[in-house]
Amino acid sequence: MRQTFDETTSPSFGATHLPLIRSAMAEQGMDGFLIPHEDEHQNEYLPAANDRLAWATGFTGSAGAAVVLRDAAAIFVDGRYALQVRDQVDGAVFEIRDLVEGGVPAYLREAAQPGWVIGYDARLHSPEALERLRGAAAKAGAALKAVDVNPLDQAWGDARPAQPTAPVVPHPLQYAGEDSASKRARIGAALSEQGAEAAVLTSPASIAWLFNIRGGDVIRSPLPLAQAILNADGTARLFLDPAKLTADLPAWLGNQVRLETPADLENALAEMKGRPVLVDPAQSAAWYVEALKADGAQIVEAPDPCALPRACKNAVEIEGARRAHVRDGAALTRFLHWVATEAQESLPDEIEVVGKLESFREASGALKDLSFDTIAGAGANGAIVHYHPSRRLNRKTERGSLLLVDSGAQYLDGTTDVTRTMAIGEPSLEMRERFTLVLKGHLALARVRFPVGTTGPALDTVARAPMWAAGLDYDHGTGHGVGSYLGVHEGPQRIAKIPNAVALAPGMIVSNEPGYYKAGAYGIRIETLQVVTEATPIPGGERPMLGFETLTLAPIDRRLVERELLTGEERAQLDAYHARVLAAVGPLVPAEVAAWLEEACVPI
Amino acid sequence: MRQTFDETTSPSFGATHLPLIRSAMAEQGMDGFLIPHEDEHQNEYLPAANDRLAWATGFTGSAGAAVVLRDAAAIFVDGRYALQVRDQVDGAVFEIRDLVEGGVPAYLREAAQPGWVIGYDARLHSPEALERLRGAAAKAGAALKAVDVNPLDQAWGDARPAQPTAPVVPHPLQYAGEDSASKRARIGAALSEQGAEAAVLTSPASIAWLFNIRGGDVIRSPLPLAQAILNADGTARLFLDPAKLTADLPAWLGNQVRLETPADLENALAEMKGRPVLVDPAQSAAWYVEALKADGAQIVEAPDPCALPRACKNAVEIEGARRAHVRDGAALTRFLHWVATEAQESLPDEIEVVGKLESFREASGALKDLSFDTIAGAGANGAIVHYHPSRRLNRKTERGSLLLVDSGAQYLDGTTDVTRTMAIGEPSLEMRERFTLVLKGHLALARVRFPVGTTGPALDTVARAPMWAAGLDYDHGTGHGVGSYLGVHEGPQRIAKIPNAVALAPGMIVSNEPGYYKAGAYGIRIETLQVVTEATPIPGGERPMLGFETLTLAPIDRRLVERELLTGEERAQLDAYHARVLAAVGPLVPAEVAAWLEEACVPI
Repeated sequence: MRQTFDETTSPSFGATHLPLIRSAMAEQGMDGFLIPHEDEHQNEYLPAANDRLAWATGFTGSAGAAVVLRDAAAIFVDGRYALQVRDQVDGAVFEIRDLVEGGVPAYLREAAQPGWVIGYDARLHSPEALERLRGAAAKAGAALKAVDVNPLDQAWGDARPAQPTAPVVPHPLQYAGEDSASKRARIGAALSEQGAEAAVLTSPASIAWLFNIRGGDVIRSPLPLAQAILNADGTARLFLDPAKLTADLPAWLGNQVRLETPADLENALAEMKGRPVLVDPAQSAAWYVEALKADGAQIVEAPDPCALPRACKNAVEIEGARRAHVRDGAALTRFLHWVATEAQESLPDEIEVVGKLESFREASGALKDLSFDTIAGAGANGAIVHYHPSRRLNRKTERGSLLLVDSGAQYLDGTTDVTRTMAIGEPSLEMRERFTLVLKGHLALARVRFPVGTTGPALDTVARAPMWAAGLDYDHGTGHGVGSYLGVHEGPQRIAKIPNAVALAPGMIVSNEPGYYKAGAYGIRIETLQVVTEATPIPGGERPMLGFETLTLAPIDRRLVERELLTGEERAQLDAYHARVLAAVGPLVPAEVAAWLEEACVPI
Repeated sequence: MRQTFDETTSPSFGATHLPLIRSAMAEQGMDGFLIPHEDEHQNEYLPAANDRLAWATGFTGSAGAAVVLRDAAAIFVDGRYALQVRDQVDGAVFEIRDLVEGGVPAYLREAAQPGWVIGYDARLHSPEALERLRGAAAKAGAALKAVDVNPLDQAWGDARPAQPTAPVVPHPLQYAGEDSASKRARIGAALSEQGAEAAVLTSPASIAWLFNIRGGDVIRSPLPLAQAILNADGTARLFLDPAKLTADLPAWLGNQVRLETPADLENALAEMKGRPVLVDPAQSAAWYVEALKADGAQIVEAPDPCALPRACKNAVEIEGARRAHVRDGAALTRFLHWVATEAQESLPDEIEVVGKLESFREASGALKDLSFDTIAGAGANGAIVHYHPSRRLNRKTERGSLLLVDSGAQYLDGTTDVTRTMAIGEPSLEMRERFTLVLKGHLALARVRFPVGTTGPALDTVARAPMWAAGLDYDHGTGHGVGSYLGVHEGPQRIAKIPNAVALAPGMIVSNEPGYYKAGAYGIRIETLQVVTEATPIPGGERPMLGFETLTLAPIDRRLVERELLTGEERAQLDAYHARVLAAVGPLVPAEVAAWLEEACVPI
């Protein structure tokens, strides 16, 4: 089984590791040190070797930060992790604070002393993040200073895992849909238009996309950890640990791409002297900008030039996504059938639920990896938005409760991400009513039409309005971008309350995942992936409008739908979706499952 | 009659005035000069003495800019004014360009020559606007330079009207709801929190609000043109032309407010030396910032500290708004009755329509002014969003057409702004269907509930979604803030597609005005004002939600509503609104009108 349930950290980490960090800090003459969650590649998911925050504190969430001072220390997490951090981190060692309200800057203003020197590793912070921290430290009379050697890495020493060296392989054209030379030529031309002669690329997802390669350095995403320099003429330099090279990679990359080692990068940056070079100040570490400046290059600050083209999938990638979702839908349907039948009697625990779903996906023969660790929340655990089952927290399903399962798969032709919420036994009227409200928002966002130029925040409201009308809301975004056999969370577009200026464009794959969470009782989320479709005129309309095509194919639990709360339009939409699921997935599942699916897809 | 229909400019202005401006420019050794629409107070509406753009070009719209170079000149307007500018400006003299797409910066990059000096009047541009222009000029190798004397003002000479000196009067507590000392104390405390010892206020609306005074220097808004310095301790200095002083004003202002003349302002800024002073870099002219910096003050850049408190009306102001809207609703109802009866036979022209409506408002005895020149668009003129009737463009109503009337009034207790669209003769099915789509969006935004923290752009979609679904949209915002016997367009909140980070808060008055425009045929807009109501829990809900109370009271033309396109919820909402209108307004209108109103308010 791919997913594991053992805890990899302990609340004792803080008391054990903090003195080691402080001693390394003191040796370098520093009064404090900043520990971000991010690593050298500003990834969401990290290889074990780079999960510094977890080693220092015990906290394993996907976002956060810590500050270690001479005489105090604090960890910062956002609202999603408010419960988990108390479980994983020793509150006697680390003061627990909110990452968003005040965050690290407020702490520095309060706790730093005049004259103090607070160290940071310039390879781990973006220039934009550092600027905020520098201002806060200055207000306390303290100064930030880049370290030469990361004191945490020194303290970690031999116990630190090795850097991953997973093989890097070609990502064939039948999945990528556009060869790397073509991608490099058009991104190169875009660099020229921005007045840059080259771009420094540090995002593994961008590098994987640009060169049509995939790796395995980061769990759950086929990412190669690497850096690259793309020149405006379409030639490039790729800095990759030789241990990751596979036999056919050099030929695949071609003679326009020079393969080099990470040790060559510093010299390559020095060669930029006097030239305009694009760097993304939100995505790349400050180290790159500082090195380039020191070398005399001219910095062009702009977003990662691969981010938007990567987000807009081409026809081959969209066709792959459709295929991947039919395959995934068959596995999901077998799983939902199991939940609706056997599990209603056997009342499995969450770990069994995760294993069962994984086994159906594995049976497809095409599974490369999960796209993230499955969230299976039984009863009250479903109300913890970023819950993952572990042996210690594992909970049995119970009659009269809900089971929320958020999961996804990595296939060569596409990445999936889907949430279904199912009744175990007889659901209460309140559960059905709230499920139906979530469904109304979900359906509204699936059928919405919108003009070119519309951004995610404008559509976020479409999914929330039915819940707002009932005095309810949910404290997470409504939709994130998804890669094509890449990261399951991908920018630059996002459907959420927080501002995002990127217009939704044809080919972008986004999730549609409104939810409702009743603390201590149950959680509801309905999530499908949908792709932005080309602008088409509407009969009688005057302006071509964009829209969405739903990719995910898995039935929605009809036992949780209060038919009377749906409008005629909503019922027709749900019925049409279920008819699509039945037609696409029915032929791919065993007869017994197909018979159940037919029932599950009967018009509401 | 208050509104006039004579044109105040001519397309010949460009050819006549441009040589005068160029000659004054050349005398100062400049190769170009920037002419913004804005004046010294960054107001939307200008006194005639400050409408420099109109004098230079002939264009009288409420937004725009011009650039005069040695050998070329261009005028910039947004999409609303694309037709009007061609009508008012000589295209042989001024190249006509888009204000938004590229705008002035793109023109400077293209047209300015290396070494050129482009002049600007620092009293007319905000620092934020100047920064963009400065960068664009630099890219062309040209430099911006502040002038000592505005060459356009020199060219205008004796022909320029005098600065207005309308009397400034107290705005009594029965309308303002909070005395000036209390306002000054709390805004002063807010300054301290931001680390400022004082704020320079240059917005006439903020000054009117803070000191509870009203003036008449600007048409359609009771604004006094003035500047002020508010100190953190609540004391203030008000710089006001002595010609505007009325007898009881000094006593009304009290001894915490020092009355000074505009000539004293420069010395007052010099006294700020070494002190932290708040200035709004988006609202105040660059001249203030530059003068303060030259004087050695420490600039605290932050939004105008009065803008948000002014937008959140207190209980007395809201009660006043309700009263004003009942009074205005009675006048409107008499007008709508006239349109629905007599006008169906007499087929009046637009100027008669405007006059009739004004006469009903005047008859209330409480009318201080219109809140803007009435837009009466008959037939195809209704499709021109910012149309105003003039003797030349005046159009007769025709059977089988629509009449769009957007109007408002200034009363001591409140400012109104309302649009109704009415059928003349028998409307077509297409007109009724599109009216009903606009109505669906309007009703959705009137009944929406939303959590604290929600911003205007998140609600904009609520009004547009029904039109988007039909392949339609409109090219203007959905809602603007409205003052309390102040400007009819007031920030900082706004419901529109363009980003706005200000959360809607209880007491804010905003318009709700979706529309549909068929060029060359007809225009539809339905507009009411609504006030954000306090957060209240919803039965069965978990979070207190904000909402809106509709202020405007005037029936919506039922002959334009396609009943079958409305949901049951929408019908009930429309019926409830009409019942409110009938109950509030019915008793205030003549018997014949009341009988008609009863018919007009029958459930749909």
